[in-house]
Amino acid sequence: MSSTFGKTLTLTTFGESHGIALGGILDGFPSGVRIDEDFIRSEMQRRRPGSSSLTTARKEDDEVEILSGVYNGITTGTAIGFIIRNKAQRSADYSSIEHIYRPGHADMTYDAKYGIRDPRGGGRASGRETACRVFGGALAKLYLRERGINVSAAVIELGGIKASGYEWKPPFSPPIYAPENDNLDAMIKAAEDAKADSDSVGGIIECHIDGVPAGLGSPVFDKLDACLSHAIMSIGGVKGIEFGSGFKAVSMRGSDNNDQIRISDGKPLFMTNNAGGILGGISNGDTIIFRAAVKPTPSIYKEQLTITDGKEETTIEIKGRHDPAIVPRAVAVVEAMSALTILDHYLEEHGYER
Amino acid sequence: MSSTFGKTLTLTTFGESHGIALGGILDGFPSGVRIDEDFIRSEMQRRRPGSSSLTTARKEDDEVEILSGVYNGITTGTAIGFIIRNKAQRSADYSSIEHIYRPGHADMTYDAKYGIRDPRGGGRASGRETACRVFGGALAKLYLRERGINVSAAVIELGGIKASGYEWKPPFSPPIYAPENDNLDAMIKAAEDAKADSDSVGGIIECHIDGVPAGLGSPVFDKLDACLSHAIMSIGGVKGIEFGSGFKAVSMRGSDNNDQIRISDGKPLFMTNNAGGILGGISNGDTIIFRAAVKPTPSIYKEQLTITDGKEETTIEIKGRHDPAIVPRAVAVVEAMSALTILDHYLEEHGYER
Amino acid sequence: MSSTFGKTLTLTTFGESHGIALGGILDGFPSGVRIDEDFIRSEMQRRRPGSSSLTTARKEDDEVEILSGVYNGITTGTAIGFIIRNKAQRSADYSSIEHIYRPGHADMTYDAKYGIRDPRGGGRASGRETACRVFGGALAKLYLRERGINVSAAVIELGGIKASGYEWKPPFSPPIYAPENDNLDAMIKAAEDAKADSDSVGGIIECHIDGVPAGLGSPVFDKLDACLSHAIMSIGGVKGIEFGSGFKAVSMRGSDNNDQIRISDGKPLFMTNNAGGILGGISNGDTIIFRAAVKPTPSIYKEQLTITDGKEETTIEIKGRHDPAIVPRAVAVVEAMSALTILDHYLEEHGYER
Amino acid sequence: MSSTFGKTLTLTTFGESHGIALGGILDGFPSGVRIDEDFIRSEMQRRRPGSSSLTTARKEDDEVEILSGVYNGITTGTAIGFIIRNKAQRSADYSSIEHIYRPGHADMTYDAKYGIRDPRGGGRASGRETACRVFGGALAKLYLRERGINVSAAVIELGGIKASGYEWKPPFSPPIYAPENDNLDAMIKAAEDAKADSDSVGGIIECHIDGVPAGLGSPVFDKLDACLSHAIMSIGGVKGIEFGSGFKAVSMRGSDNNDQIRISDGKPLFMTNNAGGILGGISNGDTIIFRAAVKPTPSIYKEQLTITDGKEETTIEIKGRHDPAIVPRAVAVVEAMSALTILDHYLEEHGYER
Repeated sequence: MSSTFGKTLTLTTFGESHGIALGGILDGFPSGVRIDEDFIRSEMQRRRPGSSSLTTARKEDDEVEILSGVYNGITTGTAIGFIIRNKAQRSADYSSIEHIYRPGHADMTYDAKYGIRDPRGGGRASGRETACRVFGGALAKLYLRERGINVSAAVIELGGIKASGYEWKPPFSPPIYAPENDNLDAMIKAAEDAKADSDSVGGIIECHIDGVPAGLGSPVFDKLDACLSHAIMSIGGVKGIEFGSGFKAVSMRGSDNNDQIRISDGKPLFMTNNAGGILGGISNGDTIIFRAAVKPTPSIYKEQLTITDGKEETTIEIKGRHDPAIVPRAVAVVEAMSALTILDHYLEEHGYER
Repeated sequence: MSSTFGKTLTLTTFGESHGIALGGILDGFPSGVRIDEDFIRSEMQRRRPGSSSLTTARKEDDEVEILSGVYNGITTGTAIGFIIRNKAQRSADYSSIEHIYRPGHADMTYDAKYGIRDPRGGGRASGRETACRVFGGALAKLYLRERGINVSAAVIELGGIKASGYEWKPPFSPPIYAPENDNLDAMIKAAEDAKADSDSVGGIIECHIDGVPAGLGSPVFDKLDACLSHAIMSIGGVKGIEFGSGFKAVSMRGSDNNDQIRISDGKPLFMTNNAGGILGGISNGDTIIFRAAVKPTPSIYKEQLTITDGKEETTIEIKGRHDPAIVPRAVAVVEAMSALTILDHYLEEHGYER
Repeated sequence: MSSTFGKTLTLTTFGESHGIALGGILDGFPSGVRIDEDFIRSEMQRRRPGSSSLTTARKEDDEVEILSGVYNGITTGTAIGFIIRNKAQRSADYSSIEHIYRPGHADMTYDAKYGIRDPRGGGRASGRETACRVFGGALAKLYLRERGINVSAAVIELGGIKASGYEWKPPFSPPIYAPENDNLDAMIKAAEDAKADSDSVGGIIECHIDGVPAGLGSPVFDKLDACLSHAIMSIGGVKGIEFGSGFKAVSMRGSDNNDQIRISDGKPLFMTNNAGGILGGISNGDTIIFRAAVKPTPSIYKEQLTITDGKEETTIEIKGRHDPAIVPRAVAVVEAMSALTILDHYLEEHGYER
Repeated sequence: MSSTFGKTLTLTTFGESHGIALGGILDGFPSGVRIDEDFIRSEMQRRRPGSSSLTTARKEDDEVEILSGVYNGITTGTAIGFIIRNKAQRSADYSSIEHIYRPGHADMTYDAKYGIRDPRGGGRASGRETACRVFGGALAKLYLRERGINVSAAVIELGGIKASGYEWKPPFSPPIYAPENDNLDAMIKAAEDAKADSDSVGGIIECHIDGVPAGLGSPVFDKLDACLSHAIMSIGGVKGIEFGSGFKAVSMRGSDNNDQIRISDGKPLFMTNNAGGILGGISNGDTIIFRAAVKPTPSIYKEQLTITDGKEETTIEIKGRHDPAIVPRAVAVVEAMSALTILDHYLEEHGYER
C-alpha cells in the first residue's frame, strides 16, 4: 500500500502536482480533539511554495478543506477526509519535456514501473504531495502536544555551510528555518549563489522530539528508529538518516558511545545522548534526535545530458519554477512525518484513552 | 506487528538469546524453489558466533530445522516454519546483572515498555534474533539469484579505519568481511586493540544490490529506499543509513549530484550513481548502493556508571562473552534484510510467476 | 485501519451522510486501464437513492469527481482520489433525535466508542458510505471483465417472498433487481405493504462470480471465502452469509455435499457446486456463489421504545426519508465488494502484468 | 499474508498434517499474563483427535512446547513461539491417492495455485492446522476472562437433528459438545449412523461472547461482525455464518427485528437480541451471538467420481482415519478464533494497560 502510512493511525494520500487536487484520509485519529485552524494554517504555511526568494515562484495558498470526521470543530474519531485544490497549475511549462527524462527525477522510473506517467510537474513524484503529510502531521501534533510531546526540526547545514554556535530554540524562522547562528547569512548566501548559477544546493535537517515517554516502539522489525527512518526516507530527496551519534559512532569506542546513567530528581538521567533517545528500538525517555540528508534540488536550469523515453540521447535545460533548495520547505515535512510516526506508536501502546 | 517484516513476503520471528529456541515463519515464499542446504548453511555460518577472535566466544552451530513448507526438498508455497535450538545458554553469566541496566542496551527500555523482561543475554533484544533473518534472507537470495539479482555487503570501515584502494569483488572473507584493501590489517588491529582495552569498536557496512530491474518500489510512503531503510535500521546497533552520495550530497550542487544519462548498448547508462540506484523511490536499473553505520558493541568489560531497576545509582562491569565488534557479523544480516526487502517488492510487482 | 479495505489493492474511504462530501482513495490499481465513465455512472445509478418508490426520497445524483491517478482518461497506476459531494443534506430532519438512540442503528455504539458522534443521518454509519465502494468496485470490474471475470448479484428473496422459477440472466432490473420470476410482483408488493404500514422488510442477495481462474485465495486465514465474507459482512445491514450449499450443508451427508468431478472438453467439470466455487479457501474454477442476508431497514416510522444518550427511557418515531427495503440498493454494493476482493487476490497472485 | 491473523494481536502459523511439526507465533500479546498450563491443555484436549468414536482414530497428544515470550511462567510481551510435534503421521495411508483429487478437498486447488503440494493428509489444508489456533485462543481467553469476557460455543445441530429444549450452560461436554437437550441422543446417533454408512454429517455451532464492553469494533470495513466472519469462515469446512436473527431477519419486519431498549439498573437493556450484540459494526454491550454452518466431513469411505492430476477420470474410496463429523472438534476452534478477534479489537481500543 504505497500511499498509506502507519498502522494504528494511517494517513493515505493522493494527488499529482498539476492535477485537480491533492488530498488524503487520516484514519484512526482519536475523537474529541478540537481542530485548531490557525495552527494547521501556520503548519501548511511553512511548507507552502512562493514564500521567499529561495523557494519556487509557484503560488499556492494550500488551503485545506476538511470534508469529514469533524463535527462542530471537534474530531469524531471517524476518517478525516481532506483536499487541497491545485490553483497554479501551468502545465504548458512542462509540455516540452514530456518525452525527456530529467536527471535526478523519477520520470524514467515511473515509465519503467507503470508504462505511463503524468508528465506535468513530476506528477505523483512531485514534492507537492508532502502538503498532505503536513496536514496529517499538524493534527498529530495537536494530540501530542496535549501530552507534552513536541517535535521541532531545523536546517543545520545548507549548501555546504554548517550552522555554528547555536542553541535549540524553536520555532525557527524563514527563509531557511535554521537556528539563529553565526553562519546564518553564509547559509542563505550559499543557496542564493547556487540560484544565480542556475544550480541548486542540499542540506541537513535535524529533528528533536521531546517528551516521548520511555516505552514507545517495538522490538525487532518495528523499532522506533526503523519506523522513523521509513517515514523520513519516504520524503522525496532525503538520501540518508542517522540517530544520535549516528555515523560518528563508527569511529567511537563503546566506552565513549554508551550513554552512562545517573539519577536526577528521582529519574534516570543519561549523561550523553549518543543513542538519540532510543535503545533497542524503544524510546528511553530522553529527547529523540535524528538528522536527515537532503539532496540538492534535481530541477536545475543548467544544461544536462539525458535521454528520451524512446531511448535517444539528448540534452535538457529545465524551465519552470523550482526551489534552489528544497531543504527549508522540507523542515515542516520532517516534523509532520515524525509526529505521525510517534502518534502511531503512542496509540498502539496506549489505545484510545478517554 | 513488531515481529513481522514485509507485506507480500513476510518473515515473522520469535526467540530470546537464552531461551529454548529461536525461529520464525517465512510466508508468501514462492513454490517450486529447491532448498540449497549448503548455501543456507554457508549463510548462517557467516553470522554465527564463535568463528574468530573478534566475535563472542559463545559457541552455537546455528543449525536450522525446517518444519514445514518444503516437500521432497522443494518449497510448496505454504508457510515455511523453522527453529534454531539454543545450545550454549549460560544464564548464570547474567544473573548478577538482572536488576542493573547495561548502558547502551535495551534493558531499561524493555522494563519501561513491558514491566518485565528476560534478563538472560538481552532476551529478545539480543542480536541473536538476527539468525532468523539470515535464514529468511538465504531463501530470498535463492529466488533472486535465479533472476540475476545479487546482494553483497562488506565492512568498509572498522574502528575508525577506512578500507582503501579496493575493488568490489564478493564474496568477502572473514574475520571481518572487508574487501581486500591496503588497510585490512589496520582495520583488524583496531578491533583487536579495542578488545585488549576491554572496549569495542563500530564500523560501516556497504551493500550493493545488482541486477534489480527498473520499476521496483512504490511512490510516496513505500519508496524502495524507505523500505530498505526500515529493514536495515531494524537491525540492532545500526544508527544510520545513506544511499548513493548520501550525506555527501548535502554539500554538492544539483549539477554534480544529478546522474546524467547516456545510452550504451541500447540501454540507459547513468554516468554516475549518486542516486544509489533509486529515483523517486523506484529502482532505476543501476546498482542499488547504501551504507549503514554500526555502533560499537555496547557490551564492554570496562566499568560504567548506571542505575538499577529500583532507580539506585550503581556501576557495572559486564562479564560474559561479547564481540569487540558486531560489524563483521552484521554483514550477513544486512544482506539478508536487503534480499527480503527486494523480494517482497519483486513479488508485489510480478506476482507468483510460473 | 477501519476505513481501508484490501491488501494489494486498497480502498480507503471517508464521509458522513450529511457532511460536505464522501470520497476515497483506490490505491494499487493497475495502470493503463481506460476509464469508462458511462459504465461507472451506470454502476453508481444502481445504488443511488431516489430512483423508485421503494427507496428513500432523498435526491442525490452521486456524480463522482476523480481527482488524481488518471491522465488523459487512462489510469496511471498511482492513487485514484475521488469525491462525491452531498447535495441533499437536510440536517433539520435529524435535529429532534440528536440525543435519542434509534433502535437497530449505531447511534448508541458510536457514542460508546467515541464519546461523540455526528447525528445527522447516521453520520459515518449511514449506508451512504457505500457509494464509495460502488465506485471502487466499478473500476475493479473494468479490469476483471477484460480477463473474463464477471460479477452479478440479484435479490432472490424480499419481504419473506422467495423468487421462484427463474434463470440467472444478468443484468437485473429495477426497482428491486431480482431475476424475472413468478413471484416478482409479490416481492414488490411485500415491500410496498411494509411501507404502507410505516414498516420495512429485509431480503436475500445472491451473488455469482464467473470466470475466476482456479488458484485464487490463500490457505489458512485469508481463504477466499473468508475474505469475501469480511467484505460482504462489512456492508451495513448484512447479518449473514453462506457459500454454495451453505446452511443447507449441515443436514446433508458428505456423499451428497461433495462435488464429484468429471472431465469435459479436457477440463475439470464439477457435477454439482455445493462448494460455491471454493475449496480449501482457493477458487476451483467453478462459479463462486454466495448469498447474503440483509435485515429490514432499521429506520421505520412506527413508534419504538428506546433511550436517550442521558440514559432516560423514551420513545421514538423516526421522521425523514428512508428506504422501506435497503436490499435492492445493496445489490450494487455486494457486487462492488466482491469485485474489489477478487481483484485484490488476483493482483496478489499475478502481479501487475503488462 | 495468508498465514497471519489479526492486526494488533497477530497469530501466524505453519505446518502440514504429516510434517515434522505444526506451530506458530503469537505476537502483540500483553506482558504480565501468567501461563495457566492446565487451562491450555484442557483447551487443546477439546480439539484433539482420537478422543471418541466420533473423531478420527489418529492419536496425537497435541502437547504444545512454548519456545519464547514467557519467563518464569509469565508472558514478557515479546513474540510467543510454539510448536506441536506430529507424532502419528502415517503417510503410507495417503500414497495411493497422491495423484487423485479427493472431492470436497483442496487437493485440486492447491495444485492449481502452487503447481506442487504435500499430499500427505491434506498437507497445509488439513484441519490439523487448527491446533495452533486453539493454542492462540487459549492465551487470548486467559487475558479476556480477567476482564469479564467469556467465550462459549456449542453444537446446536448435528446430522440434521436440532438441539431442543436447552439452556446455555457452558462448559459443554464430549463427545459432541452440545448443550444438555432433549435430542442429544438423536444427534449422536445421526453421526454414528453416517459413520456406519461410510458417510459423514455436518452441523451448526452457536457461539456466545459475554461481557464485551460496548464500543469494540470499527465502522466501515472492520466492523466487529465482519472481522468475526473473516475469522470463523477461515476455519476449514465452515460454509456460512449469521449473527443474531441472521437469515431469519430477512422475513421479519423492521419493527420486529429492531431491538428496542429500556433501562435496567441504570444500564441499557435490549428487549431482544436480534442484532447479535453488534450495531453498525460496534459491540453494543449485549451478548455477541453467531452461528456457523459446518459442512459434512469431505473424507468419506464411499466410492466417489473424481479425476487425477493428469486430468483423467477415475474413482476414489478414501482410506485412512477420518472424523464422521468434524463439527464437535470445531467447537474449540470457533471459540479460539472468536477470542483472538475480540482481543485484537480490545487491544486496539484499550492499548496495553498496566
